[in-house]
Amino acid sequence: MSEAVKLTLDEIRNLSLTILSGSGYGPDHAAAIADMLVTCQIDDCQSHGLFRLFMCNDTMKAGKIDGNVAPAITQSDNAIVRVDARGGMSLLAFHEALPILIEKTRTLGIAAMAINRCFHFSALWPEVERLSAAGLAAMAMVPSHSWVAPAGGTRGSLGTNPLAFSWPRQGKDPFTFDFATSAFARGEIELYRRAGKPLPDGVAIDKDGNPTNDPQAAMEGAMLTFGSYKGSALSIMIELLAGPLIDDLTSLESMEFAGNSGGAPYHGEILLAFDPGHFSGGRIDPNDARAERLFADITDQGARLPSQRRFAARARNIERGYVEIAKTLYDDLQELAQQI
Amino acid sequence: MSEAVKLTLDEIRNLSLTILSGSGYGPDHAAAIADMLVTCQIDDCQSHGLFRLFMCNDTMKAGKIDGNVAPAITQSDNAIVRVDARGGMSLLAFHEALPILIEKTRTLGIAAMAINRCFHFSALWPEVERLSAAGLAAMAMVPSHSWVAPAGGTRGSLGTNPLAFSWPRQGKDPFTFDFATSAFARGEIELYRRAGKPLPDGVAIDKDGNPTNDPQAAMEGAMLTFGSYKGSALSIMIELLAGPLIDDLTSLESMEFAGNSGGAPYHGEILLAFDPGHFSGGRIDPNDARAERLFADITDQGARLPSQRRFAARARNIERGYVEIAKTLYDDLQELAQQI
Repeated sequence: MSEAVKLTLDEIRNLSLTILSGSGYGPDHAAAIADMLVTCQIDDCQSHGLFRLFMCNDTMKAGKIDGNVAPAITQSDNAIVRVDARGGMSLLAFHEALPILIEKTRTLGIAAMAINRCFHFSALWPEVERLSAAGLAAMAMVPSHSWVAPAGGTRGSLGTNPLAFSWPRQGKDPFTFDFATSAFARGEIELYRRAGKPLPDGVAIDKDGNPTNDPQAAMEGAMLTFGSYKGSALSIMIELLAGPLIDDLTSLESMEFAGNSGGAPYHGEILLAFDPGHFSGGRIDPNDARAERLFADITDQGARLPSQRRFAARARNIERGYVEIAKTLYDDLQELAQQI
Repeated sequence: MSEAVKLTLDEIRNLSLTILSGSGYGPDHAAAIADMLVTCQIDDCQSHGLFRLFMCNDTMKAGKIDGNVAPAITQSDNAIVRVDARGGMSLLAFHEALPILIEKTRTLGIAAMAINRCFHFSALWPEVERLSAAGLAAMAMVPSHSWVAPAGGTRGSLGTNPLAFSWPRQGKDPFTFDFATSAFARGEIELYRRAGKPLPDGVAIDKDGNPTNDPQAAMEGAMLTFGSYKGSALSIMIELLAGPLIDDLTSLESMEFAGNSGGAPYHGEILLAFDPGHFSGGRIDPNDARAERLFADITDQGARLPSQRRFAARARNIERGYVEIAKTLYDDLQELAQQI
């Protein structure tokens, strides 16, 4: 980071609340969004931290989101908690339905949360880590916009469709991953374009469906999935589970809904939670030991577990009591805070 | 296929039952295994069809499997059906627990089956397709043996860890995929070795952890996952969900258990099932239409859905009433049938 500004966690939260409130988010939504931004900044996850306040503001200006709406939870005696965000940001819906998901999972062994009709901009790892912090394993999936071509295709049908997973570890940071099923994140291509750098092979096709290394041609064409036809199949699974299964939009429909309005995509989200106690017949400790042996076998050979860098940042930032963000970002945020 | 033999479905089943019975599998296990082999041969899935009778026989000869044991299902009022295969082949356990999984899913919206202590050789798509045939979406995962290195690693820690998924389509073959999270299947590397062909890049490392294109060096070293660190993360997730979560072996432990005994690996399996009616609030038809629009958008641009070739084979083989297998395989099976 060329020039950095140090901010305490309170300063991050207060700056977030100021901008969110000024943008038109009511106190409940602003608090849920600020929580997520703080969580990301503690881990130095700059791509989903304070930087996203611009998108929150843009989303409000686009005129479709409701900054004050209360999510509506459908009561059920089954293993699914459905929460209708009613055109608000996803995070308050997640926050309010989370205790029910945890309770259902502890009772039934496996349970799911379906969030409907939400605007969505956030990383998924903070959500699955809320579940692993409660001793549950968890998976989360969302569609996005149809920027990504299926394997063998010539145009976008699929979203960047991230998959996140977290596994609780006793006395340790969880095993967590959160990756886009596109080869690159959308923002990475934009960074290559700004830097005038060619893309690696296998990342994108142009508007005629031909492979391209030109970031601008990629933005006008389509991205590719990671892992060829396997990644493509996985991405389609995410479309189905986080879309039609839960009565919500595919990435194709989400992009149509957005038109040219900009801001965060509007669609659904699905989370699955697993109770190790139920699945293992109460044998948690020996199975935790079994998982730890696998992790040790991976790290002992010099391979890294996903999220290790993020957890190191978390430990350092909590220890020293502040985080660093780029001064340019800080200045832009101050300017935004004054404009609104 | 150079020289082929035509077999009716009854002939496949009878040949399978003869060999399985002669190998030491009791009637219930033999029937469940034969069902699976017939299902694979109808779809021209040669790699998991009659060819696997040799492995079934080898597994029995290795002396650890029980060919007559009855699976034990744990009764529960939660969303998990646990079935202990008690050292038998997985397929009878799956067969007996399947109606309970379907009933739990229809009642609770989401449910899981955990199969424990089973020997396992079969493809996963026939199992998830049993669930999609019942109108449910389904996912299945198993570990295997630790032939696969994690991203950034130098030796095997992970299994080939397949992930299968099926989605029901009204009046059509389901959307199904079933892929190994290793870049290649173990058998594919063996085929390259026999053919004296170099492996593509990114498939394997040698015993010192260096990239190799030599199939023999790959067999002595380790395979790599598909999709680099993302495929590796996914493979670790499968280890955790189909291993420690359900109180069963990781691929590392499964390989240790096997020693040099050969035959099918011994471990657990997890299946998840999703009821679209519960998840969508009863809005199945409009959401099926939404999924169909996505599939059409994929195929309209010339991309293929996974399993399309298999479904075409199924339609053709059912229409003509017979399947074809290689004459060399047929002759070897006849010889096996006479030996045992």
